[in-house]
Amino acid sequence: MASAILRNTVRAASRATRSFRPAPIAFNNTRMFASVAPFVKGEPEAPSIKTSEIPGPVAVEKIKALDEIFDTRALNMLCDYEKSLGNYLTDADGNSYLDVYAQIASIPVGYNNPHLLEAVQSKQCLNYLINRPALGNFPPIDWESILRTSVLSVAPPGLNQVFTALAGSDANETAYKAAFMYRRRIERGEGAEFTEAEMQSSMLNEAPGCPQMSIMSFKKAFHGRLFGSLSTTRSKPIHKLDIPAFDWPHASFPNLKYPLSEHEAENRAEEDRCLQETEHLIKTFHNPVAALVVEPVQSEGGDNHATPYFFQGLRDITARNNVLFIVDEVQTGVGATGKFWAHEHWNLSSPPDMVTFSKKAQSAGYYYTNPLLRPNKPYRQFNTWMGDPSRVLLFKAIIEEIKSKNLVENTRQTGDYLFNGLRELAKKYPEQVKNLRGEGQGTFIAWDTVNRDSFLKEMKYAGVNIGGSGETAVRLRPMLIFQQKHADILLNALESTWKKRS
Amino acid sequence: MASAILRNTVRAASRATRSFRPAPIAFNNTRMFASVAPFVKGEPEAPSIKTSEIPGPVAVEKIKALDEIFDTRALNMLCDYEKSLGNYLTDADGNSYLDVYAQIASIPVGYNNPHLLEAVQSKQCLNYLINRPALGNFPPIDWESILRTSVLSVAPPGLNQVFTALAGSDANETAYKAAFMYRRRIERGEGAEFTEAEMQSSMLNEAPGCPQMSIMSFKKAFHGRLFGSLSTTRSKPIHKLDIPAFDWPHASFPNLKYPLSEHEAENRAEEDRCLQETEHLIKTFHNPVAALVVEPVQSEGGDNHATPYFFQGLRDITARNNVLFIVDEVQTGVGATGKFWAHEHWNLSSPPDMVTFSKKAQSAGYYYTNPLLRPNKPYRQFNTWMGDPSRVLLFKAIIEEIKSKNLVENTRQTGDYLFNGLRELAKKYPEQVKNLRGEGQGTFIAWDTVNRDSFLKEMKYAGVNIGGSGETAVRLRPMLIFQQKHADILLNALESTWKKRS
Repeated sequence: MASAILRNTVRAASRATRSFRPAPIAFNNTRMFASVAPFVKGEPEAPSIKTSEIPGPVAVEKIKALDEIFDTRALNMLCDYEKSLGNYLTDADGNSYLDVYAQIASIPVGYNNPHLLEAVQSKQCLNYLINRPALGNFPPIDWESILRTSVLSVAPPGLNQVFTALAGSDANETAYKAAFMYRRRIERGEGAEFTEAEMQSSMLNEAPGCPQMSIMSFKKAFHGRLFGSLSTTRSKPIHKLDIPAFDWPHASFPNLKYPLSEHEAENRAEEDRCLQETEHLIKTFHNPVAALVVEPVQSEGGDNHATPYFFQGLRDITARNNVLFIVDEVQTGVGATGKFWAHEHWNLSSPPDMVTFSKKAQSAGYYYTNPLLRPNKPYRQFNTWMGDPSRVLLFKAIIEEIKSKNLVENTRQTGDYLFNGLRELAKKYPEQVKNLRGEGQGTFIAWDTVNRDSFLKEMKYAGVNIGGSGETAVRLRPMLIFQQKHADILLNALESTWKKRS
Repeated sequence: MASAILRNTVRAASRATRSFRPAPIAFNNTRMFASVAPFVKGEPEAPSIKTSEIPGPVAVEKIKALDEIFDTRALNMLCDYEKSLGNYLTDADGNSYLDVYAQIASIPVGYNNPHLLEAVQSKQCLNYLINRPALGNFPPIDWESILRTSVLSVAPPGLNQVFTALAGSDANETAYKAAFMYRRRIERGEGAEFTEAEMQSSMLNEAPGCPQMSIMSFKKAFHGRLFGSLSTTRSKPIHKLDIPAFDWPHASFPNLKYPLSEHEAENRAEEDRCLQETEHLIKTFHNPVAALVVEPVQSEGGDNHATPYFFQGLRDITARNNVLFIVDEVQTGVGATGKFWAHEHWNLSSPPDMVTFSKKAQSAGYYYTNPLLRPNKPYRQFNTWMGDPSRVLLFKAIIEEIKSKNLVENTRQTGDYLFNGLRELAKKYPEQVKNLRGEGQGTFIAWDTVNRDSFLKEMKYAGVNIGGSGETAVRLRPMLIFQQKHADILLNALESTWKKRS
């Protein structure tokens, strides 16, 4: 039976790439696109599914062997990365998928990107791969120039400093640490030394040295899974069960109705309710709030959006309550929303105090500007490696690729095209596409569907690797090289799958 | 004046490498060494200090520029890694130092090691550098073989599984998470589902979902600086001040007298006292202890040693109290103590439950065996990258280099030679060398000294980059390619510096 499904699906898909265009789209495709030349030379024209079952026989055998030494229960696909190219991911059996999940939103400019390959083979990058510096103590002579030409060349407006890290979790946690040290510095007064009571109690994990302060986050937020970041994560019980957590507060995140344009009044009321709750909690929570952290789109928690009005409100509330405002751009950053940083959509009254990043940056860290966010003494924000220059050089190459190919603009335009196509299709399959969201947010698009996990598997047979978020959402996270032609393939695969489901 | 110091020092050092031998050593050098052939082709014969001030003029200028965007207050040396080779680290002004600190103990087989350079240029490694997989969902087809031929090929005796991570902090924190999930699994009973109360309370950071359980550590321990690991770190107030911490217990670590062989009875009594305190705390602490974590040598906290008897006691106490025993080998692992893993010195009654690693492995993670340490459901121990195959491939090359050059044995032998030399010198400079320790522990050697931080700077003028730990210790952390000739240079530099101080 699976075999029959497969044959139909593949046939439908390959027919579709030639003939299918999603029903009426309200603009002229060819005029709209800044560039229609393909970004990736030699990329497949369409997905190609060769095995009747997914995973195929080679994968099944290899997964079994791998499971002896590595937990494979979350395994989605065993991949052949050497054979993957551009937007296409190849599995162990040689099936080739259009990849709109991109390693959980972390591949920026395509598999086997030649510019990235060149970058990691540069003398400079090889040097830092084999001679990894302890950056805090022994930074390299070109560290300033590396930072300025990479991470800092795309710093969010108004921010000009960076603390580098290794992944999203430690980027967030080091930002939280900076927030706590800042808050106590302000409370203590500039130049004040630590008291003997603080020094002694800190060694006992007790106040006043280790104060009972907090980082505030939102319902359904995801900020990582180490102990501090997990205390701000509120996505799902499975992420949190059995792990001790700090007594930190969280407010409601707006539960908006889509399409946003049709529910403006009630959505505004909902955002006001959440803003009021946020400020009330900041003013009253028993463990003083040093910082508020928020994602521009709650990405693991189900692709929950809010409007610029809400985020402007958060900026203003935090400013007037002396709470730092941290924007977690680990998943939204580096172009996917049609701006380099998603919070650039907001027009804030002042920049966020810190912005964290990772994933598509292939490095990690937090941006800031306020000099008081450098702790009052050295060695307070410190660890052995403090980042990785080879990964920062990779980010530099990614930025070069993004700029030379105008990929943020591509993502904005392709996202609009894709969103329009989805909106049209949604009219035909209203049971399959609920709460379509992400309009004007590049390719950062999602919707809710029934039997979501089964749907994600069905899409594999249609040649598409696609991910979910939250309990019911399908999330699109294509790379920045995702173009109109890829959007067409995706739309066709979605329609063929929905047709079978309906 | 500094210039005069410099000229004397450098002259003394270069004279010394030719003529100086540390006073009577109780064994035959030439017979003792498995290999006296140099490991590094083209390595300098001796340090070379060219500037009258350290840092020199080039460094001073560059550090100032770097400080505009990156906190440089912990900066020890601005380094030219391309010009560094083997045991020698070059700074921005071209000064070349014998490096016995090795990027805070994290460089295993020398700067610009040709085998490592070859490894990172392999097709396989380049592939994973530019196509970084989300390992939990999308592992590569060769992930099993990569793990088996690298990390698992040097697994500590009795351990055969690995969870990979990015650095020491997250290696420890994921091990702690595994311990908490294990403990609750045992308490719940196999096959039991999470209760509704657990699920709901977990989203509020409250018990029973987020239980008030603990990880126990020791006074002066260092296990990292993220929120969970920092709660087990008890090294110095500056590491902990202003950061909220969990209410977790810590016991006294033995405060031994050196040399160990001359204080056996009182040291045994001290270790018994600490063991009793440990067991008492485990039985009585208000937040139940899921795991005990310990370093084989407390490395950041001052190079505090204990005897195998103490660690055997910890293994037995944890076993009989159903507490997991985690050995943190982040700094001690990968050969530096003359065994691949330092805990192999102990002859435990059963292997540790988990062993964490990073630094010289250039990758990170924790080893384990018990299948119940894989959480009962998928996605409980998970993050986007879950390690880094390119770094694991680098570890593979490091292991190959260690095996082909017999570097663990080299370190054992060189360590013995160095320790004997230091013991003799200590008799001449008793004020400079107190509590010499690390006998039989490879090159993992330390001592206490007066005005330690000033001593570390003075050693730079003698051409040696050397580190401290705790408040008063000098710690030696040379690479595994540190040979007798390097030990001689180090001993000479130490003596010339001590002579000036005395």
